[in-house]
Amino acid sequence: MKHTISVLVENHAGVLSRISGLFSRRGFNIDSLAVGVTDDPTVSRITIVVNGNEYIVEQVKKQLNKLIDVLKVKIIEPEALISRELMLIKVTASADTRGEIIDIVKVIGARIVDISRNSLTVEITDSADQLELLQDLLGPYGILEVARTGTIALEKGVHSIHNK
Amino acid sequence: MKHTISVLVENHAGVLSRISGLFSRRGFNIDSLAVGVTDDPTVSRITIVVNGNEYIVEQVKKQLNKLIDVLKVKIIEPEALISRELMLIKVTASADTRGEIIDIVKVIGARIVDISRNSLTVEITDSADQLELLQDLLGPYGILEVARTGTIALEKGVHSIHNK
Repeated sequence: MKHTISVLVENHAGVLSRISGLFSRRGFNIDSLAVGVTDDPTVSRITIVVNGNEYIVEQVKKQLNKLIDVLKVKIIEPEALISRELMLIKVTASADTRGEIIDIVKVIGARIVDISRNSLTVEITDSADQLELLQDLLGPYGILEVARTGTIALEKGVHSIHNK
Repeated sequence: MKHTISVLVENHAGVLSRISGLFSRRGFNIDSLAVGVTDDPTVSRITIVVNGNEYIVEQVKKQLNKLIDVLKVKIIEPEALISRELMLIKVTASADTRGEIIDIVKVIGARIVDISRNSLTVEITDSADQLELLQDLLGPYGILEVARTGTIALEKGVHSIHNK
């Protein structure tokens, strides 16, 4: 099962390296990791999606809490999860196939952000599952390159990671 | 000046830790780092935005190329850059202020993804500058929490990181 963990860290050199090192050393299976600044420039927020049972997730939480520069660790419950990922995907597109690709992009709720004589570049922000569906649908046209951000998440409602 | 570097890596344990460790050890100033899978499940793509002059960027490229599991390093020229970041931001919103917030969100091209009696959660995919503009505009209402992905980027047109 997938678990989403939010980690607030001091924005110091080496903290990302220590966190990713912890996961690789202990063999925890990371599905996705995303790091970004917050509204406080001294604090970054790392979102980690881990595959494993409850025991694994508790272990991960415990180990993260021991690391220098880790301020807060919160597991977001699946029923409270607002979770999104961003992907840019470039596909081969000729005058013949462009219309078909535009139809797929529209139905899935994505956006075309670049066009050339032989390619289209598409931006999609959605769940990881929807990103993979779009990638599957565009596969037959020829995928030229893909960049993804990893998943970020917040909890539904007014509560935040800063609450006690 | 900001420089955008795309790195293709073998999807092995420890590669992210080695790359982020390289930056912290050498004191390179990372503006943003994003990591995601690609259409090849054995390969991940890391996008790094670095602040520095041409010399620094060449040094970064050289050091990255020396690391185990690094397959390809490409600096994307600013004029060819398609660059996006995703943010989720939750703000305090009462019946009184909700309308004002919805107006800001519409004008800036963002989307409301969750509502409660006392909060709104907004999703925006745009340049890092636009994300910061939205954050500034929502600041006065009271920001409850923020999660950002870091910037990802592709090159305009049909060329890809896989080209010789």
